[in-house]
Amino acid sequence: MTVDFAATRALFDLPQDVIYLDGNSLGPLPRATAKRLADCVQSEWGQMLVTGWNKAGWMAQPNLLGDRIARLIGAEAGTVMVGDTLSIKVYQALASGLDLLPKRRIILSNDANFPSDLYIAQGLCNSLGPDYQLKIVENGAIEDALDETTALLMLTEVDYRTGAKFDMGALTKKAHQVGALTLWDLAHSAGAIPVHLSQTKADFAVGCTYKYLNSGPGGPAFIYAAPHLIDKLRPALAGWLGHADPFNFSQTYEPKKGIARMRIGTPPVLQMAALETALDIWDLVDMEDVRRASIHLSTRFIAAVEASCPSLSLASPRDAERRGSQVSFSHLEGFAIMQALIARGVIGDFRAPNLIRFGFAPLYNTEDDIDSAARILAEIMRDDLWKEATYQTRAAVT
Amino acid sequence: MTVDFAATRALFDLPQDVIYLDGNSLGPLPRATAKRLADCVQSEWGQMLVTGWNKAGWMAQPNLLGDRIARLIGAEAGTVMVGDTLSIKVYQALASGLDLLPKRRIILSNDANFPSDLYIAQGLCNSLGPDYQLKIVENGAIEDALDETTALLMLTEVDYRTGAKFDMGALTKKAHQVGALTLWDLAHSAGAIPVHLSQTKADFAVGCTYKYLNSGPGGPAFIYAAPHLIDKLRPALAGWLGHADPFNFSQTYEPKKGIARMRIGTPPVLQMAALETALDIWDLVDMEDVRRASIHLSTRFIAAVEASCPSLSLASPRDAERRGSQVSFSHLEGFAIMQALIARGVIGDFRAPNLIRFGFAPLYNTEDDIDSAARILAEIMRDDLWKEATYQTRAAVT
Repeated sequence: MTVDFAATRALFDLPQDVIYLDGNSLGPLPRATAKRLADCVQSEWGQMLVTGWNKAGWMAQPNLLGDRIARLIGAEAGTVMVGDTLSIKVYQALASGLDLLPKRRIILSNDANFPSDLYIAQGLCNSLGPDYQLKIVENGAIEDALDETTALLMLTEVDYRTGAKFDMGALTKKAHQVGALTLWDLAHSAGAIPVHLSQTKADFAVGCTYKYLNSGPGGPAFIYAAPHLIDKLRPALAGWLGHADPFNFSQTYEPKKGIARMRIGTPPVLQMAALETALDIWDLVDMEDVRRASIHLSTRFIAAVEASCPSLSLASPRDAERRGSQVSFSHLEGFAIMQALIARGVIGDFRAPNLIRFGFAPLYNTEDDIDSAARILAEIMRDDLWKEATYQTRAAVT
Repeated sequence: MTVDFAATRALFDLPQDVIYLDGNSLGPLPRATAKRLADCVQSEWGQMLVTGWNKAGWMAQPNLLGDRIARLIGAEAGTVMVGDTLSIKVYQALASGLDLLPKRRIILSNDANFPSDLYIAQGLCNSLGPDYQLKIVENGAIEDALDETTALLMLTEVDYRTGAKFDMGALTKKAHQVGALTLWDLAHSAGAIPVHLSQTKADFAVGCTYKYLNSGPGGPAFIYAAPHLIDKLRPALAGWLGHADPFNFSQTYEPKKGIARMRIGTPPVLQMAALETALDIWDLVDMEDVRRASIHLSTRFIAAVEASCPSLSLASPRDAERRGSQVSFSHLEGFAIMQALIARGVIGDFRAPNLIRFGFAPLYNTEDDIDSAARILAEIMRDDLWKEATYQTRAAVT
């Protein structure tokens, strides 16, 4: 497949005066989304009312959207389900994984993991009792910490701050050697880099759709389980839409066959319509092409920034193969620098304590964007323009 | 407050040829919603991009919407939080409740409760271990089943099939007498009847917004906790947006003060915008006025149907004070009868094995609607028109 990224860029409704390098936090609006949502509201909800669950296909959407995401993350059809939030999907995977290995009580993770994943594991362990423990180690200590007590190794494939990428295949193999399962958070992977869930034999994966996949603020999450595990999973969050026969209204939970047992409650129809429209763009591209273009953009940005901003230190791996689709630089005044960038129309984000972070999305970011962003950053650093930046608190959602 | 229900009806975009008596499953579209969503998509997401979390106020919405729902359910400001699905909110309440009473292991519920509530309790008990048990009894046996082993009494205030209404105050008092907590599911109460959470001293409540509250398909749920309990709750679903300082990205979970600890992940911004618009209508009315009008409509419907359809048996309490805002009739051919009604533009729904169910929402249902629906039902029964109804499977979401 040859991708015309000029054509995909035209499918997004980007503000004129903005260079958007924060699609790793919230992806921009596809042009087709407004009309799709208007149709969903007026023609489906408004006209079909409750019959929309079948007539408009709302009820089937979590499965259908899951299958479309599956292609982007190297998963087979029937292994991915859409719904809820990433935190909920982490909980489902961890609870099911612990249940599969009842003699093991340790969830192993790294100290650089996204905090919500750690919190969810802590909350689950607290509920299950004092035997259960979240063990947090440094990246370099992960392999040594894996042992026969480890139930799950939970890692985010691409570090949300530095963009450093774990070797999913190698770590999954190490985990399997001690009999542990793996849970991969793809928050900064799905739509950012090619993911090979099936090939790497990952056991569980979860991800969100509002970053690189462009489903909009609060878009639903997804969960993956390896085919050989799916029908063994006992859902901890045993909701009626994961029941074998939900409209029979029986009193006893019995999970559906297949990944649909990971459904819980009523799915968010409006958010799913927005996701559906975003995936229409993804259907046009191949992740290998996206990756090639992303590496080209991020490498170009690093070279330009390093040539003109000696006070900024690269916080991401220099080797493009070892990073995702984002690049971070550290500087003590990172917060003010990012404010100055945003004031000049370059939107990236800041991550405490000192990182400015830029995401690269070839679907809509061009070489010109990257060159302009690097030039504006150079001006800010050369003339100390960040000193003027107002110190506003800005809470961006990763 | 005097309510002009003709004025509120004009605020809904109802199809011309439909009499909609299924707002207890999915409420209809408010006229203002399409424009609000278009603004949310184009002006907020499209133009503000990631800065919308603060600039457009997305991040604060779960609290603000919760406070607006609080008024409708007799709760104080600061006790209701919006998000996720009803099943997730049931899980949060049950897990927190069990954690508050660690020596008690029984969740008590009734066999007529909505199955997803029972499933969620079963899934939680399975996770927690063999000591934990969901005990399901008949309605008449609830009070006797309450004892010192009961951690939580979990009931849906208004029965989803019959519309029968529990006495929240009396049962909460009984539960408290044995030291148990109560969890009330308000799925068929919020926007249907006046609810008095604070006055009845209910401990937890949960509900959905896509039925009587008209937030649209898949609209977010809500959770309530009594003020004296809130800061004692240890969230089992410990997500980062319930953290005391989420953007500090610390490794250890520490719950926020207040009901915001019941937040989990990124909230569904599009669905919240739809809820916000729906609540603009609710801000115009008082639940006591809604209740009076609802009783008038349901009583009129029962009288008309009983006068003309002797083969239909009333399955709801005859005493209006003992039912919610819905009425069901039983008939062996209930499924076909409902199909015949829908084919003639009267939308109610069917609940296995033999109930036809009608919801009454004075915000948009008029006396004329009720009279016409009863007349059409009478024609169907008199002329056996249901025999022509196609037996299509129809999955409606309660």
